[in-house]
Amino acid sequence: MKEKINNLTIKMLAKELGLSVSTISKAIRDSHEISDGTKERVNALVQKLNYIPNPYASSLGSRNSKTIGVVLPEVTDSFFAQAINGIECVAQENGYHVLIYLSHENFEKEKKILKDFESGRVDGVLISVAKETIQHCHIDALMDKAVPIVFFDRVMDEVTTAKIITNDYESARLATEHLIKKGCNRILFLSFSHTLSIICKRLAGYKKALLDNQLKYADNNILTFGNDAKKDYLLLQKKLKSASKGVGILASVEKLALPIYQACEDLQLSIPEDIQVISFSNSDSAAFLHPPLTTITQPAFEIGKTAASLLVKALERRNFELRNEEIIVPSTLVVRKSTIG
Amino acid sequence: MKEKINNLTIKMLAKELGLSVSTISKAIRDSHEISDGTKERVNALVQKLNYIPNPYASSLGSRNSKTIGVVLPEVTDSFFAQAINGIECVAQENGYHVLIYLSHENFEKEKKILKDFESGRVDGVLISVAKETIQHCHIDALMDKAVPIVFFDRVMDEVTTAKIITNDYESARLATEHLIKKGCNRILFLSFSHTLSIICKRLAGYKKALLDNQLKYADNNILTFGNDAKKDYLLLQKKLKSASKGVGILASVEKLALPIYQACEDLQLSIPEDIQVISFSNSDSAAFLHPPLTTITQPAFEIGKTAASLLVKALERRNFELRNEEIIVPSTLVVRKSTIG
Repeated sequence: MKEKINNLTIKMLAKELGLSVSTISKAIRDSHEISDGTKERVNALVQKLNYIPNPYASSLGSRNSKTIGVVLPEVTDSFFAQAINGIECVAQENGYHVLIYLSHENFEKEKKILKDFESGRVDGVLISVAKETIQHCHIDALMDKAVPIVFFDRVMDEVTTAKIITNDYESARLATEHLIKKGCNRILFLSFSHTLSIICKRLAGYKKALLDNQLKYADNNILTFGNDAKKDYLLLQKKLKSASKGVGILASVEKLALPIYQACEDLQLSIPEDIQVISFSNSDSAAFLHPPLTTITQPAFEIGKTAASLLVKALERRNFELRNEEIIVPSTLVVRKSTIG
Repeated sequence: MKEKINNLTIKMLAKELGLSVSTISKAIRDSHEISDGTKERVNALVQKLNYIPNPYASSLGSRNSKTIGVVLPEVTDSFFAQAINGIECVAQENGYHVLIYLSHENFEKEKKILKDFESGRVDGVLISVAKETIQHCHIDALMDKAVPIVFFDRVMDEVTTAKIITNDYESARLATEHLIKKGCNRILFLSFSHTLSIICKRLAGYKKALLDNQLKYADNNILTFGNDAKKDYLLLQKKLKSASKGVGILASVEKLALPIYQACEDLQLSIPEDIQVISFSNSDSAAFLHPPLTTITQPAFEIGKTAASLLVKALERRNFELRNEEIIVPSTLVVRKSTIG
């Protein structure tokens, strides 16, 4: 029974067939509690009324809006812009619409978006969580309604579903090693979250490289940016002012890279002579900055594509289950002149 | 009667009340063809069944999805990313959801998206058209269904509704004058469309500046990029190879700027000594390129905000009509070192 049926229709079907609303509702959902005979009666009346389904008038979450919801923290980051292109590529091939919802890093907003999905607006969801998100009840609630969810990039380890990520730990470890090999004896780690999975993994990789190279991990080498860009910038400037030669910086996301360039310019510090810099970044401009920026470049398009492919499989194959697995698509360290060649 | 009612429900109401489907449908739409008595009977049954409206199960296009659809060509451009933030700012204040749809510069895709809106999925639409879009029947069709539409940035002059733009003509004229004043005697104009309103206006501003300064307009100074990035790049490289000193370039959109830097690097040409460059661009990285890029920076956030404010007004005020007016929010020429200081 593929038709979309709302509450009012259920009440009318109940009245017409002399059954309870709950029985009709269960029959429509193909519940095992309802006999085949009853299901047939309900189905027959729906057929008889010759209903032409309206793909958007969903109420019971049957999957035929042919729409994928993509929940992102923002689009000003090149990673997300490129991941969207990968998602759209798969969606188009398989006849799905893509709707993009922005949480703006806000947990309440993300909750509202997922709540909205419960009404059947989308068939499945691809999500990269907001930096504020530490609970997952909103995700569990949607999964309970049989809406398949695939995480990409910013995942929640505690949730049992597919996750597409890059090798965050290993990339950060290699980048930190690179800085150490190039002569840095003190390395700052620029962060913007204490809780986000990807940032925690990148921080752990950074720590591991320090440990392997007999460098001390110190809290005052970790700078965590908040929501006040001006205040954050002053903090960074202060930290760099007191930095001696041999300092390296690992920026854990793209948007933290340009403030470093700004601060060095303002303080008349040279990159890479005074300070060496590596950033996680997918920005095309990295190669043309002054100096060109050494980056950890993530396979953003590929991650979007892989996540969307898995979700489409889950939507189209009755027996395909999204397992609690991570698919890891590795990043590349692209060495440019912000680290000593 | 504010409930959302689908086709199946209409058929059941018709059966229950002994009326035709068309009568029920008209009664629900509060049509003047239907008597008050009949409307009351239909209404009473709906009330009696105590229906809790599902805000997303729209079928009759009444405006209460509380959702704004934003149709964009892409999100990899900083202008659009910043405009989205302006739109979301107004939407949030007024309790609207924002859904982002990407046309990927494809007319057929844009048409499908707008067709999709006819089912009542969104209350109103903000659109910046694809570069392929030269007809507007898809936009007219949606406006015929009383869905309010506001254009921003990439508008269609022929369509009678509000348009929020920047001063494209004047900005390009001023940028071209700037290049001439700095010693350029030949100026290339980099385009990616022959038909898009903003590009035509920017080209006209460029022409005007040439004319005002006794420089000849020549077709072979206009380079129009297509969909093949490699081919386009080779074309640009060939053009720059044969360029003598005193050449300036005006890039009409952000994404055309980095290929210029790439070509100059490959050809060992210096910016600004050999070639001066100005680009329309909202990218934060412009100030940190080598050399820093002189830009025409558009008020992207403001344009998004203004467009969304007008749309919300049109949705909330019964007597507010979107007129065929342009609101122009001016851009700023930010002089940096890619033009001689």
